[in-house]
Amino acid sequence: MAPSFAQNGGIPAPRTAPISTTGRFATVYSDVQNSRVDQPLPLPSVLKKPFTIVDGPKSSASGNPDEIAKLFPHLFGQPSAALVPSDDSNAALPDQKLKIGVVLSGGQAPGGHNVISGIFDYLQDRAKGSTLYGFRGGPAGIMKNKYVELTSDYIYPYRNQGGFDMICSGRDKIETPEQFKQAQETAQKLDLDGLVVIGGDDSNTNACLLAENFRSNNLKTRVIGCPKTIDGDLKSKEVPTSFGFDTACKIYAEMIGNVMVDARSTGKYYHFVRLMGRAASHITLECALQTHPNITIIGEEVAAKKLTLKNVTDYIVDVICKRAEDKFNYGVILIPEGLIDFIPEVQHLIAELNEILANDVVDEGGLWKKKLTDQSLKLFDFLPQAIQEQLMLERDPHGNVQVAKIETEKMLIQMAETELEKRKQEGKYNGEFKGQSHFFGYEGRCGLPTNFDATYCYALGYGAGALLHSGKTGLISSVANLSAPVEEWSVGGTALTSLMDVERRHGKFKPVIKKAMVELEGAPFKKFASLRDEWALKNSYISPGPIQFTGPGSDAISHTLLLELGAQA
Amino acid sequence: MAPSFAQNGGIPAPRTAPISTTGRFATVYSDVQNSRVDQPLPLPSVLKKPFTIVDGPKSSASGNPDEIAKLFPHLFGQPSAALVPSDDSNAALPDQKLKIGVVLSGGQAPGGHNVISGIFDYLQDRAKGSTLYGFRGGPAGIMKNKYVELTSDYIYPYRNQGGFDMICSGRDKIETPEQFKQAQETAQKLDLDGLVVIGGDDSNTNACLLAENFRSNNLKTRVIGCPKTIDGDLKSKEVPTSFGFDTACKIYAEMIGNVMVDARSTGKYYHFVRLMGRAASHITLECALQTHPNITIIGEEVAAKKLTLKNVTDYIVDVICKRAEDKFNYGVILIPEGLIDFIPEVQHLIAELNEILANDVVDEGGLWKKKLTDQSLKLFDFLPQAIQEQLMLERDPHGNVQVAKIETEKMLIQMAETELEKRKQEGKYNGEFKGQSHFFGYEGRCGLPTNFDATYCYALGYGAGALLHSGKTGLISSVANLSAPVEEWSVGGTALTSLMDVERRHGKFKPVIKKAMVELEGAPFKKFASLRDEWALKNSYISPGPIQFTGPGSDAISHTLLLELGAQA
Repeated sequence: MAPSFAQNGGIPAPRTAPISTTGRFATVYSDVQNSRVDQPLPLPSVLKKPFTIVDGPKSSASGNPDEIAKLFPHLFGQPSAALVPSDDSNAALPDQKLKIGVVLSGGQAPGGHNVISGIFDYLQDRAKGSTLYGFRGGPAGIMKNKYVELTSDYIYPYRNQGGFDMICSGRDKIETPEQFKQAQETAQKLDLDGLVVIGGDDSNTNACLLAENFRSNNLKTRVIGCPKTIDGDLKSKEVPTSFGFDTACKIYAEMIGNVMVDARSTGKYYHFVRLMGRAASHITLECALQTHPNITIIGEEVAAKKLTLKNVTDYIVDVICKRAEDKFNYGVILIPEGLIDFIPEVQHLIAELNEILANDVVDEGGLWKKKLTDQSLKLFDFLPQAIQEQLMLERDPHGNVQVAKIETEKMLIQMAETELEKRKQEGKYNGEFKGQSHFFGYEGRCGLPTNFDATYCYALGYGAGALLHSGKTGLISSVANLSAPVEEWSVGGTALTSLMDVERRHGKFKPVIKKAMVELEGAPFKKFASLRDEWALKNSYISPGPIQFTGPGSDAISHTLLLELGAQA
Repeated sequence: MAPSFAQNGGIPAPRTAPISTTGRFATVYSDVQNSRVDQPLPLPSVLKKPFTIVDGPKSSASGNPDEIAKLFPHLFGQPSAALVPSDDSNAALPDQKLKIGVVLSGGQAPGGHNVISGIFDYLQDRAKGSTLYGFRGGPAGIMKNKYVELTSDYIYPYRNQGGFDMICSGRDKIETPEQFKQAQETAQKLDLDGLVVIGGDDSNTNACLLAENFRSNNLKTRVIGCPKTIDGDLKSKEVPTSFGFDTACKIYAEMIGNVMVDARSTGKYYHFVRLMGRAASHITLECALQTHPNITIIGEEVAAKKLTLKNVTDYIVDVICKRAEDKFNYGVILIPEGLIDFIPEVQHLIAELNEILANDVVDEGGLWKKKLTDQSLKLFDFLPQAIQEQLMLERDPHGNVQVAKIETEKMLIQMAETELEKRKQEGKYNGEFKGQSHFFGYEGRCGLPTNFDATYCYALGYGAGALLHSGKTGLISSVANLSAPVEEWSVGGTALTSLMDVERRHGKFKPVIKKAMVELEGAPFKKFASLRDEWALKNSYISPGPIQFTGPGSDAISHTLLLELGAQA
């Protein structure tokens, strides 16, 4: 997909220094935005003093190390790097002015601006006279050499602010030999010592390919990645979380908590809440741990147990019926955006539909349905009529069914209605059911970063600066020990190749950083699984309330992270 | 409509005293909820010292005073009451234990629990040994004598918390002679000295009818109303705002601000945001003043200018085209929930459709369309197909078209798409358009009340206690001078009859408190109107961020209120 930024050329005017609150309507920033701009950002203590880099043992790969070694001959096996305090001021760091580029890649996540602030401040503090270029509109900006020189005045208004509009992002990839050549040309033209790629799993894979390419072509430009995605599916032992996940989940949890209070007060609605996160269900799981809904569907569990849509519907309806026995005709249900992608039978149906729609006449009488397999026909007939129509009518430009357009929460409401009506006929249910659908998505991607994301991102950026300054390449900035106070956070870099496996595509091995899915044996899911039956029937709702920047709760970190770090064990 | 509460009998367990934060998952309350429970509530200084009540001049009615006088022979003409400091301790207030009832009526609004806390604390402070009964599930609780005695322990966990679940609400009205008799019986059975009705325009009308009824039957029970509705359409000179409006608007504005940052960062979406508020567009206007969207539709203006749906679409599309010339293919558009109710031609079409659907056969061939008037046929053909189908297929149990189910934001996206495609063909537009729809509704009704709503509600309740203690009836609790510090707020009561007019229904005059609509000559609309052209083309977005309870912005009051009070003049 072409980058929106390059596509429309509509470059947002840079945010100007915020005007103070005299004359409310002339103010560019709200009071809260204003107060956040000036908020000092704490650094881990290792970044506040002279440090040196200590390399760990030689690394391998997440899978198929032989293939990864072939794909990354210069980088494979690189050790992880840890920053440690050094008595020797600026030990081992060259006294050099650096030229560094930074790029935002893919969807937005709260905190991106702070990564850039962190890189900038590192250069100011440790490599005075350095230059930071921001590539505009994502990787396309690298290929087309579209950039802005980032100065203190330019960056300042974006500190602790949401969004990616400082330099905008894009979804292009640097893939073809021609594109790699363009990237090389830009690196040489700008005389870049380093490049920081802020992105998700794909973008960090791309960052590593770029690092390998630059190294193999004897360019001096080094490449460091930073883990970004609200979905929370880019993480490993060394990279405990991706930035943006904390803020997005807290924004969604605020809304879910409000809707729970609404449900309990009104006593007559089942709120079906679909949450962003197409590939993995981390957001849904985290929101469940924060708010204690009656029902939570986790895609990874649906897939592992090979559940059908009927199974999922029955689970929901069983809980609704049990609650009706206690006269609770209300509740809150969380659904991950990608739910139907986790259900194999739905995938089969869609594949068959695409085939039929491409090659056959769809007759009014429904004779075309005979071309479906038995299983798919059964599923198709089970779907609500509106969804059937949506599947048949709305296609993408290639004629394919648009799965992403299916409003899963509305579909489940309709299926629950049908099943409840059936049970009512059978005398097994005598409650009242009214479904309300919600989708919480875009409003979570660009919120003001929480204290956690603001601080974490600043450290990620500052650390990325340190890694580049130390001559490192092909690493992902890694800040860990996150359940401890900020001063005690560890800072370093992890070999991107160590996170990789290969996938076979078009007969070739492609390197991939596998998405971190919800682990059914992991602490967050197990905690959830041990409590969900209680949450289903009792109303243990918790309303996290709006994100606070000072006072109680303002420095809390996500439950997922806490549990994964064993802090709650 | 029967009250949900009475309907399902599902009484939520009372919130228990919040457990402290040791053991996060055992905590009933979040950190923020916990911190809010203990937050002290400031009182206007007149409520902190001995006071006396000063009556104003005889009042009249908002319209048709002669009819109002006939409908309220005992109450019409009552003066407004103002609390003023008195040297004489408890001047004129009887040394008496009171029995007071309180009821929540209609939809939820943040702050309701604080009104109840205010009444309770008044009784504790000034009429020790009094009893407060909470009627359960709205007015039905009065009629059926379903109540709970509210104690300090019972109330405490609800302080500063959202929702209405302390005693729940309902939408019944006390209307028939039989129902008034039931209310009398309850009042007598509980030996009530007073009743506080917390509700919107209808509920306060009902409160006044009840006050008149009790007075005319020589019951001692007095009735005081409190202005509640997130829609902001219950207000007058003496009642500057209804509670809940402030919190709801700030929750929506947080989300709108986030979506704006998303729009600017991505550069490729037009976000169409529908906001709660069916009758009046105050919420949409306030959110516009807080966030500066590119396009804002105000229902009252649409009605005043007799705009058609085509006019509204053209206005939106004109702005989109102008923005495309500047390469801005993104934006944010606010739409009030009740928009189509403001468009006369839509009302005509729906009336005609209801008639046709009830009496005629709707043939596939479309011959039935000949029964539509020319204007309605033109409008029907102008509507997107999905909306046409929705109008024809989805009917309520009476067979009527369900206007409330039309997702106006999706309809406008489809109409904009069609019009933009047309202009593209004509060479008048060369941008890219992708609409994203949002509805911000339920998540705003039950949020944690802002500092303003928390304090305002507490004063409303405390003041209601004072009015009842002073022997007043048929007044609405009125707290004013709200742009001043809390200490300087004025407290009193306004004759409910003075807010009333009559409407002719079924050949009879019915008293009504007219909904306060957005005044096109009022300061908030004029401010908006003077800025919207700039907002349309420049991106003057403001992101209010999450509601803060301490620090900058935490004590801000709504722009609407500030402007109406002339504080910004």
